[in-house]
Amino acid sequence: MGMHTEKRTLLTVFTEASIEQVLIRDMDRLGIRGYTISDARGKGSRGVRDASWDESRNIRIEVICDRPQAEMLLGHLQTRYYSNYAMVAFFTDVEVLRPDKF
Amino acid sequence: MGMHTEKRTLLTVFTEASIEQVLIRDMDRLGIRGYTISDARGKGSRGVRDASWDESRNIRIEVICDRPQAEMLLGHLQTRYYSNYAMVAFFTDVEVLRPDKF
Amino acid sequence: MGMHTEKRTLLTVFTEASIEQVLIRDMDRLGIRGYTISDARGKGSRGVRDASWDESRNIRIEVICDRPQAEMLLGHLQTRYYSNYAMVAFFTDVEVLRPDKF
Repeated sequence: MGMHTEKRTLLTVFTEASIEQVLIRDMDRLGIRGYTISDARGKGSRGVRDASWDESRNIRIEVICDRPQAEMLLGHLQTRYYSNYAMVAFFTDVEVLRPDKF
Repeated sequence: MGMHTEKRTLLTVFTEASIEQVLIRDMDRLGIRGYTISDARGKGSRGVRDASWDESRNIRIEVICDRPQAEMLLGHLQTRYYSNYAMVAFFTDVEVLRPDKF
Repeated sequence: MGMHTEKRTLLTVFTEASIEQVLIRDMDRLGIRGYTISDARGKGSRGVRDASWDESRNIRIEVICDRPQAEMLLGHLQTRYYSNYAMVAFFTDVEVLRPDKF
């Protein structure tokens, strides 16, 4: 019958490594309980910032939470960083194991 | 008309780097034919383990397979590691190119 | 009522690090406007290439675009690289923030 799983939202953010510490502080303050960060390199541009990304210093941030919390975090990122930093963010529907108590 | 694709399940596991070799042996023994591992850092906690994750030594493991195999692997991880290691795992629906022989 | 988002396709490619520069040139030539690359290690084999992957030198390439462009890029990779390089690629449905002008 398959595993019992629950739907969550994965928020993935590709952005500049220079703001990693600032983003970590933001997530802590916004009540995000867990996140994963990894190094990446890339090319792209976004919004009013015309310059290409730095080729060698990007990061990927991943947060798994419920949809409202993912939207709250992305709304914050959009308001605060989208116009001044190279940033691409997207939602993916994922399934996690249902906690035993359910 | 679009490409011919087939549905698969992507199992992503964020966990402690200290158990990478153990998990590789598990996957080999369970018949997992391919996996990708990358380094990450993060914060989080899970299950009965109260401590926060080590900030600097995490890994991401990704396995693409059919759903039953993904559930078998995740069931194994849950039984064996969820209570003693920081571990977050989730399923994502993905599409791969249909093999030529189909 | 939730954020206004738009559907996009995430194309993820796991392949050999040795062809990173060639693939970047391909993407530029094919009009791919942004991509993210990160280092990985893995095991797997694919298609007519029987050898296992090099354990230590793989990359993950991620491109977010519309579905036709993702299929165009994957079609190119399949034709050009699938028979001679270890390569696994898959599509994931994702949501990005709707641009303000929509």
